[in-house]
Amino acid sequence: MTRKDLVANIFDKGSFLCIGLDTDPRRIPKHLLKYEDPVFEFNRRIIGATHDLCVAYKPNIAFYEANGAEGWVSLERTIDIIPENIFTIADAKRGDIGNTSAMYARAFFHAMDFDAVTVAPYMGEDSVTPFLGFENKWVILLALTSNKGSSDFQLLSLDTGRPVYEAVLTTARQWAGTGQLMFVVGATHPEKLADIRKIAPDNFLLVPGVGAQGGSLEEVCRYGLNKEVGLLVNSSRGIIYASDGEDFAEKAREKALDLKNRMSEILDRTFG
Amino acid sequence: MTRKDLVANIFDKGSFLCIGLDTDPRRIPKHLLKYEDPVFEFNRRIIGATHDLCVAYKPNIAFYEANGAEGWVSLERTIDIIPENIFTIADAKRGDIGNTSAMYARAFFHAMDFDAVTVAPYMGEDSVTPFLGFENKWVILLALTSNKGSSDFQLLSLDTGRPVYEAVLTTARQWAGTGQLMFVVGATHPEKLADIRKIAPDNFLLVPGVGAQGGSLEEVCRYGLNKEVGLLVNSSRGIIYASDGEDFAEKAREKALDLKNRMSEILDRTFG
Repeated sequence: MTRKDLVANIFDKGSFLCIGLDTDPRRIPKHLLKYEDPVFEFNRRIIGATHDLCVAYKPNIAFYEANGAEGWVSLERTIDIIPENIFTIADAKRGDIGNTSAMYARAFFHAMDFDAVTVAPYMGEDSVTPFLGFENKWVILLALTSNKGSSDFQLLSLDTGRPVYEAVLTTARQWAGTGQLMFVVGATHPEKLADIRKIAPDNFLLVPGVGAQGGSLEEVCRYGLNKEVGLLVNSSRGIIYASDGEDFAEKAREKALDLKNRMSEILDRTFG
Repeated sequence: MTRKDLVANIFDKGSFLCIGLDTDPRRIPKHLLKYEDPVFEFNRRIIGATHDLCVAYKPNIAFYEANGAEGWVSLERTIDIIPENIFTIADAKRGDIGNTSAMYARAFFHAMDFDAVTVAPYMGEDSVTPFLGFENKWVILLALTSNKGSSDFQLLSLDTGRPVYEAVLTTARQWAGTGQLMFVVGATHPEKLADIRKIAPDNFLLVPGVGAQGGSLEEVCRYGLNKEVGLLVNSSRGIIYASDGEDFAEKAREKALDLKNRMSEILDRTFG
């Protein structure tokens, strides 16, 4: 998907919501277990109930891999039913030497036609560039993550006086333009978003950590919005596990609608 | 596998060779394509021809994922036929927030019974510890990788005057003992191994980059050996793609035997 189409979708829908499909067979409602592929059934109903409210879905690849070959089938079937105009993110956090990253790119962009894949920066340029060779496909590079461990290495101060994650932002922006490169910035660090916007004013940011992890949508928007919105705010568990009963899809819609309405308000207020 | 068993296997076999199973369906000999699962057939014959020469196999997960659900089946079948006393490494370079790393741990340690998984450090402690909750299972954490991009972030100097990868070594050693934690150190940085041994004298190091990437076994051993050997030296392409004809397994054995013989000599010379 092009950046232009993504931005148009956001304004059309009044939403920059990304819904994380962290689908765990042990957490989905019991009545779905009678189906041949319960994970797919769950995703199908969640997507059916929410696709008008969000602009992106983000399957968390770990949850599918944990089920082996079957999980991979559930993932492939899920991607196939996501409507064409919704941005799809393989949350995989891959990154390896060039020939290996090229294989991951093939898995996610060619075999499965995701729009984007999350990539870990530790191995540097040649671990990232193989993902950039696909037209209108995106790398979403980890910069400052939402978890506690983000302080272990990402926030260490370099001899330049700047933290490691800022070096990731600055350096990676030399590898790709804003039509192919986003960054992951956790909602749990809203105060850092102003600094990040100085370094990466135009890049889209994928922001996890609103909801179960405690980040605030309003704080994220205060510091993170740019002229073209520039944010995809993700919620996973807070939406998809809103209920474990037969009403799970309906309850997921309520949670998604609540976030979407707050986003619409922010967009109206900001862009009139 | 316990550390004690791993060390015993190394001395028994006179080898600290790890063979990387980077099996690409586009590179395997054409005559195997008639089989239902050519990747598995290739691996089965490589393992049959080399298992007495190595102490570890390292499937590179990207190469299996690139084939989707089928690839995952090839991987599962491969793991099932590796002899019990050979250390198995899922070269996956995973690392995510806690609940997600826990799913990856389940995929590789529970669903597939690998002995070890490679993990990327960028997200810090809570992305790594979920892998440590399995008895006699190992984390192999990226420290200083073999690729060119290793200089982009790993070699940046912190305000302490030390490079980022040294902070990874020092900090991660607080998370796990030497019976569960190894580090990846590329053979392309042999001169750094002496520094690394000062920080991590007892940890095993997984050393890729000998062979196709140009690293030297002798240099690696000069600086990297410790009292219990402490090295697993990996070769992938240099062994498994030694020939693309019907003699591929035989030629792979020759390449593996050459490395193994050089390792035996080094072990004899060092440990008498």
